[in-house]
Amino acid sequence: MTQQETSVSGPRRARSPEAKAAREHAILDAARALGRERGIRTVTLTDIADAVGMHKSAMLRYFETREEIFLRLTAEAWREWTPVLCDRVRRASTADGVAAAFASTLAARGAFCDLLAQAPLNLERNVSVEAVRSYKLTSGESLAEIADAVREALPGLSDPAARDLVAAATSLAGTFWQISTPPPEIAELYRSDPRLGHALIDLEPRLRRILRTYLTGALAA
Amino acid sequence: MTQQETSVSGPRRARSPEAKAAREHAILDAARALGRERGIRTVTLTDIADAVGMHKSAMLRYFETREEIFLRLTAEAWREWTPVLCDRVRRASTADGVAAAFASTLAARGAFCDLLAQAPLNLERNVSVEAVRSYKLTSGESLAEIADAVREALPGLSDPAARDLVAAATSLAGTFWQISTPPPEIAELYRSDPRLGHALIDLEPRLRRILRTYLTGALAA
Repeated sequence: MTQQETSVSGPRRARSPEAKAAREHAILDAARALGRERGIRTVTLTDIADAVGMHKSAMLRYFETREEIFLRLTAEAWREWTPVLCDRVRRASTADGVAAAFASTLAARGAFCDLLAQAPLNLERNVSVEAVRSYKLTSGESLAEIADAVREALPGLSDPAARDLVAAATSLAGTFWQISTPPPEIAELYRSDPRLGHALIDLEPRLRRILRTYLTGALAA
Repeated sequence: MTQQETSVSGPRRARSPEAKAAREHAILDAARALGRERGIRTVTLTDIADAVGMHKSAMLRYFETREEIFLRLTAEAWREWTPVLCDRVRRASTADGVAAAFASTLAARGAFCDLLAQAPLNLERNVSVEAVRSYKLTSGESLAEIADAVREALPGLSDPAARDLVAAATSLAGTFWQISTPPPEIAELYRSDPRLGHALIDLEPRLRRILRTYLTGALAA
């Protein structure tokens, strides 16, 4: 890193598209690693800048807010998850098989679950309209692809029911992940106080059970 | 308010339990009003102190963090919602009737939906272990009462299915409320870009449809 890049008042050099993309990539990598390490809730723009070895003011040329960075990572996570899920869903032929595909691929992606919960609360609220448009186009494409795969596996399912399934699965995965990963002292509280057994959530089996029951009802309707 | 109450270094006077309760009540009222007005996400401890006409340092004698205040309001909202919901649920006798009771009572309580989404992400993470214990005891009592009412209305339902219903309803209401109340410029984006129709969520009908389908499946199982 040169002094020019780190100085607020330094000259802005014309940057090649490749160099810009590489820098964006490095920022996203650093944010992803920090988010996985400790949950994205506490990761600040300064933390990301420090991790990538860049001055915060220089980073603002690539991303305007921490929310913009994490919203990009959420879009990326939808794109990574979608083909993996669709592949598993297409190989299923029962309500339980489809439910298991959602539950296991989501449970294996804690960072995505964290982002799914944060997106509507925080990430979509401190970014530009264009950043939200880009994110929603990505999640909308994924939603349509997944709904198609589910209807291939379960031909009796209506398109609105398949779309509701995706909305329910991703919303519940986000919230259940937050509930099932409390800070250590709260996890200890739940284990030690027998009156708080209801506070313990095991994400994958619970999500699978709820989605299977939903699909059973949708196929009966 | 006296100078003594607003000064950090001023003498702490012994306060009667009644005076303490009245002051706590005033703080909770102020926080509730601010949260309703603009969503709790942006309400700070200083905002609440200003609204109640108290110095922030004096308010810390009643509540340690903004999260503690909002977690108390979440517990209070569970206690207010539970009997209203149970009454409606007991008068229902079909999956759709029970689903409608959940959807309409939650949709009528936007501030509660907001708190339900914020609780696991933020509110339970910056408060004492005792504050979390107290909150979870309240939500656990509500959960048990509601599950009982649902099983009175739909005797074929298992207890785990009734509990999953409450968890799904409250989790989805929280997330769907956040999605369905974007900032004005984002709401305008969703209305104006025909590719983003999937981003528009109508909380009550969607929640009712998903919960009805879930209950249909649970009764068939």
